[in-house]
Amino acid sequence: MNYKAKIYVTLKKSILDPQGRTVERSLHNAGFSSVQNVRVGKFIELELSGESFEVKTQLEAMTRDILSNPIMESVRFELEEAVMSSEF
Amino acid sequence: MNYKAKIYVTLKKSILDPQGRTVERSLHNAGFSSVQNVRVGKFIELELSGESFEVKTQLEAMTRDILSNPIMESVRFELEEAVMSSEF
Repeated sequence: MNYKAKIYVTLKKSILDPQGRTVERSLHNAGFSSVQNVRVGKFIELELSGESFEVKTQLEAMTRDILSNPIMESVRFELEEAVMSSEF
Repeated sequence: MNYKAKIYVTLKKSILDPQGRTVERSLHNAGFSSVQNVRVGKFIELELSGESFEVKTQLEAMTRDILSNPIMESVRFELEEAVMSSEF
């Protein structure tokens, strides 16, 4: 079975986010003055195949050990069965 | 009213993603050999306030004009009313 995973990696709330601060300042300068608490994280999409249980275990291991830094980042993923997709 | 927005910025399918290729190679080297088509995008969270319609219009403008490059990237957002959240 083929699966598609969406992985969200975000800095923990207690960690300063200089990239987010910069984006926030740009948005203020562009007139979006009500914007606050901008946080910039990563959104990783990937495909993988195997048995359902095995795929979940693999995904847990790779998000924890490779795709995120557990000291500074939180990570969460969604797993869906891949059927077909197109984008133009 | 206070809102929380989640913004997903991804490279268009037709654009090469060298960061994704590097992550894919690392995952293969770590034994996750079934992984393919890794794409790395951005996940931006922010808070903003105002009337519902005004907030939607602002968010459309800022995602299109500042937070993404429409030539190379696709962007999608979710908007939710902020109630309260905590993270430890």
